[in-house]
Amino acid sequence: MDVPARVLVRGTGLIGTSLALALRDKGTEVFLSDADPAAAKLAADLGAGTVLPDLRDGTGIADVAVLAMPPALVGEELSFTQECSVADFYTDVASVKVLPVSLARAHGCDLESFVPGHPLAGRERHGPAAAQADLFLGRTWALCPLPETSAHAVDVVTALVVAAGADPVITDAATHDRWVALVSHAPHLVASAMAARLAPADIPGDALRLSGQGLRDVTRVAAGDSALWTQILSANAGPVAEVVAAVAQDLAAVARLLAPPDDTPDDTPDDTPDDASDDASPGDAPPVDAPPVEAGGVTALLDRGRAGVGRIPGKHGGQPRKFTVVQVVIADRPGELARLFNAAGAAGVNIEDIRLEHSPGLPVGVAELSVRPDQAATLLDAMEDGGWPVRR
Amino acid sequence: MDVPARVLVRGTGLIGTSLALALRDKGTEVFLSDADPAAAKLAADLGAGTVLPDLRDGTGIADVAVLAMPPALVGEELSFTQECSVADFYTDVASVKVLPVSLARAHGCDLESFVPGHPLAGRERHGPAAAQADLFLGRTWALCPLPETSAHAVDVVTALVVAAGADPVITDAATHDRWVALVSHAPHLVASAMAARLAPADIPGDALRLSGQGLRDVTRVAAGDSALWTQILSANAGPVAEVVAAVAQDLAAVARLLAPPDDTPDDTPDDTPDDASDDASPGDAPPVDAPPVEAGGVTALLDRGRAGVGRIPGKHGGQPRKFTVVQVVIADRPGELARLFNAAGAAGVNIEDIRLEHSPGLPVGVAELSVRPDQAATLLDAMEDGGWPVRR
Repeated sequence: MDVPARVLVRGTGLIGTSLALALRDKGTEVFLSDADPAAAKLAADLGAGTVLPDLRDGTGIADVAVLAMPPALVGEELSFTQECSVADFYTDVASVKVLPVSLARAHGCDLESFVPGHPLAGRERHGPAAAQADLFLGRTWALCPLPETSAHAVDVVTALVVAAGADPVITDAATHDRWVALVSHAPHLVASAMAARLAPADIPGDALRLSGQGLRDVTRVAAGDSALWTQILSANAGPVAEVVAAVAQDLAAVARLLAPPDDTPDDTPDDTPDDASDDASPGDAPPVDAPPVEAGGVTALLDRGRAGVGRIPGKHGGQPRKFTVVQVVIADRPGELARLFNAAGAAGVNIEDIRLEHSPGLPVGVAELSVRPDQAATLLDAMEDGGWPVRR
Repeated sequence: MDVPARVLVRGTGLIGTSLALALRDKGTEVFLSDADPAAAKLAADLGAGTVLPDLRDGTGIADVAVLAMPPALVGEELSFTQECSVADFYTDVASVKVLPVSLARAHGCDLESFVPGHPLAGRERHGPAAAQADLFLGRTWALCPLPETSAHAVDVVTALVVAAGADPVITDAATHDRWVALVSHAPHLVASAMAARLAPADIPGDALRLSGQGLRDVTRVAAGDSALWTQILSANAGPVAEVVAAVAQDLAAVARLLAPPDDTPDDTPDDTPDDASDDASPGDAPPVDAPPVEAGGVTALLDRGRAGVGRIPGKHGGQPRKFTVVQVVIADRPGELARLFNAAGAAGVNIEDIRLEHSPGLPVGVAELSVRPDQAATLLDAMEDGGWPVRR
């Protein structure tokens, strides 16, 4: 199937404008439209296409119309754009699918030409100015055809998705919503619930000084916008509730395994240190070897967690590639990383990823360079030749 | 207080050997000892100090003896090293504190000279070969003096911690254990419980293809060693259970808010798409604007989560510095990053952090460069002059 020749992007925010830019790169003629004319003009100024000021003037203008707007607006917009006959086929990009589909049905839309979709791509910034032609490169793009959707519609919209550089996955709306509940919406709430434990004023700042990278990672997404996430979670309430309830159950169970309720009085004063010392037995078997907890059940949950993590594809999708990490101590000053990358480049080594860890207040840091395993030795040699302390 | 002149490190794993290297850099004379003589010899070969083959020959050898071993072994080792009179003062580095303290009491150790401690530093690798002299630089190091501990002992061990480059925080053992339960142990279990949802075989690989960076971050720590973590969690069972139970309660409550149990029949067949469509009203108010959920309660948890995340210090401790992120599209080939860093260095701009995002299978990627806000414009100019597409 060819790249669609003419596409209407209705809604020129981050997703709509990025898609427009990607399609323009493939030679597609793109028409832009937005409830906010300034947003459509900005997208056009960025090179995303030509503004179509009034959808009612757009009869037959496009092969595909892409509705790039929040889920709650899709039904009404699909109804209106179909009324205007702007395109042969229609798709949307909303992050949940059951809700817009049900709204489209409720509005009496034509479903034969409608292929609900959801690109798994985004940025922390919004609006047309944040758009990137490569936003969808290698990303998964879910398509959820309805029983009424024609095979031809699916083919045309799939071609559009592929033209944008994305990887289509075909499923149905309800399954899609359960999947995003599992891999995105529930994890967000779990992160929030963990982070919420840090909020009370009676938790002193000194406690937070004991934080490491683990806590930062587990809670990072919980920094997201509460109003936006309430909307997302509400629009997928059932599937999210199911996953979150199951996580809550596992956590409650492991809490009981670790400390049976009877043994953990809630009224222990906060400032009594070392109460437990009186209970310690002076025997040869230290408590850790025979913990007073159902260690088997704890290990079982940890093992299930490991198995789950192991199934998450790497950041490029597909199987995560295994890179070798080379650590180099570097001076924290302009030009030092350049010198390092020069040396790596001269040795023909491609740095796949890099992490910098600065030593606070000190003029040195550690660079962790990820390279293909077969290039690690070459890189280590190059670093040593360049005078950098390396750790083999 | 001066840097301790003579220190015995008992236990030459990652922590013990790193501390030995850090102290040697400050001119301290370091003696090394390990239950495994090969480990002590390797540490000595790395320049960490001199092997002391038999503790019984070490009478009066050190100002401070550092016991670098798992919590369950500290009591017995403290008893033995004190019996040998190897040092004036003693400390340990175990990651929980109530357990080793209670074991020390049970062994009848002298507590006046003992300052329980816990450096918040570590690596994924273990053993003396992974040691780093700068492992503790800028890291928090908790010290938990007992009621019996002398002020002089606290001063001497504090000087040792400062000499290692760390930042001492004084608290008591029980408070310490509650803090690490909150910022490390409970987050690990929460990550495991979320990741465990991905493990069942009936979750297809396509579902995981919808994963993004958020899921990877939330679950990353759950990849840790189950046996080791069972030991850690068991050694701090009470405080961990308290935090985990509270998280479970919040999650169960938000699940009920999202989908009251009566409205979510468990027997919905998995393959029935779009059931919800029949319930959709064709009215003007789309469901998202008036969600069938207690949105206020959901938002409240999200807000508490945001407040909690906001309290976590940045990766260097202290207030997180705000950097400006500059995005540059780069070719994914050797030498390209060198050219980029050369340009940045020539412009006098120091790259504080860098993240690379590759486009799979394509010869381009995006580099996100963090710089001081006042240097962002200079860097953008330098990048544009060098021919890189930048996003302002």
